[in-house]
Amino acid sequence: MDDMDTRPIGVFDSGIGGVTVFKEIRKLLPNENIIYYADTARVPYGPRPTEEIIRFSLDAVDFLLKQQIKLLVIACNTVSAVAFDAILAHTDIPVIGVIEPGTRSVVSRSGIHKLGLIATEATVRSGEYQKRLTQEEPNLQLITKACPMLVSLIEEGWGNTEISKLVIQKYMEDMKGADLDGLILACTHFPVIRAQIEEYLGPDVQIIDPAEETAKELERVLQERKLLHPAEGEASIRFYVSDKPEKFKSIVEKILDPRDIRQVSLT
Amino acid sequence: MDDMDTRPIGVFDSGIGGVTVFKEIRKLLPNENIIYYADTARVPYGPRPTEEIIRFSLDAVDFLLKQQIKLLVIACNTVSAVAFDAILAHTDIPVIGVIEPGTRSVVSRSGIHKLGLIATEATVRSGEYQKRLTQEEPNLQLITKACPMLVSLIEEGWGNTEISKLVIQKYMEDMKGADLDGLILACTHFPVIRAQIEEYLGPDVQIIDPAEETAKELERVLQERKLLHPAEGEASIRFYVSDKPEKFKSIVEKILDPRDIRQVSLT
Repeated sequence: MDDMDTRPIGVFDSGIGGVTVFKEIRKLLPNENIIYYADTARVPYGPRPTEEIIRFSLDAVDFLLKQQIKLLVIACNTVSAVAFDAILAHTDIPVIGVIEPGTRSVVSRSGIHKLGLIATEATVRSGEYQKRLTQEEPNLQLITKACPMLVSLIEEGWGNTEISKLVIQKYMEDMKGADLDGLILACTHFPVIRAQIEEYLGPDVQIIDPAEETAKELERVLQERKLLHPAEGEASIRFYVSDKPEKFKSIVEKILDPRDIRQVSLT
Repeated sequence: MDDMDTRPIGVFDSGIGGVTVFKEIRKLLPNENIIYYADTARVPYGPRPTEEIIRFSLDAVDFLLKQQIKLLVIACNTVSAVAFDAILAHTDIPVIGVIEPGTRSVVSRSGIHKLGLIATEATVRSGEYQKRLTQEEPNLQLITKACPMLVSLIEEGWGNTEISKLVIQKYMEDMKGADLDGLILACTHFPVIRAQIEEYLGPDVQIIDPAEETAKELERVLQERKLLHPAEGEASIRFYVSDKPEKFKSIVEKILDPRDIRQVSLT
């Protein structure tokens, strides 16, 4: 038991998107205690300037570090794309972003020659995915599209409505005609509306969600660093938000196991 | 001619909403030179915390003051509701917000006993309209609704689409059943989709747009302070944005006289 560590894992997103990563972590590592922090007062981060995203992210990291987390998962593509290095420089605990696992989930598949990528404006503009994917797969054809309104819609609790369906069509019209092999959901909000996206693009386009690979990466790092939680008792799950805890709860209850979302506190 | 002043009027909004006020100013005061500043890098302001709205607003005011404006029009309800006093304290030139004229445009009408008010989250939360309207009309029944997604949609250029129609229905369902006499568009973005709102609420609900009354207030102040522009030559109109000038131009061209939107520069 000396190699075990009961301290919580910190999971950070600007809003509710990161719960799609949280969900995969819960599936794979049910014994881990988790503290999830959502900066709901300042969501969305995607349209913000780089220096602002970095500043807000470090605020969030400071909050989580005070909660004695053993490892930080940045469950947000925007923050992973823009503020990863700043966060690494800011703390000594291990940090896992979603972009490296996201890239791996593309590369590990066969038959992906033409890939669509949907994300926030900041993620697309950062070029991080484009750089990493091209390093791994120099012949990959990549079509990127910033879809900021999809983030706002999901934060509003309007995913999987007629409205989100129309917005998907509006953003992805060109991709539908582009004969894609796959589409990477390069924003952690988008798995919430995965079924609508799949329906629109049809069965020939593989949908790639980095969340699953991120949870696997987390398991690897916990094992390697001997940080796994001993397998006993029920995990403690806490959510903190910087604004509107009730709204957060009511939306996230539809995505997660309701038992996981009992404790939502305002920071 | 000694009483005349050729310096420009500064018009400020977080994004494209203020152009509905700009349009009324152009109609009423065609000789005035105008500099319009839109903080498109940080729009929308509506969901932001108060201190942030104030800080960003003062940045914008500083930019306009450097352009030697003779008067500032805050063509944004959020900024008028939250940062008006801070802006007044920051400059010696006259400042006109939209809330006082907006209140006047309600009070000047007869038959308004039950009023709907749609705005951003910050405007609703500030309670400014609620306070002023109640002071003027103690028996007025007021139903308020924050409609943040409408702002995002209009900024995206998706006003007057099937999407904005569905979002209007979603936000205003309760108001439709509430037997309103009037609805005040307490966000300068909303006149862009006025026809869709009117269509949804029906002909018995008077739509009140503070922009017209704001232009009249501007004329009064210019006259009173002897700041009117002499009536000769063509007015100089300049737009500045903090991000994405091309996107701003392409959306605003649909709202304004295209000749007015020839000059859009990045700050």
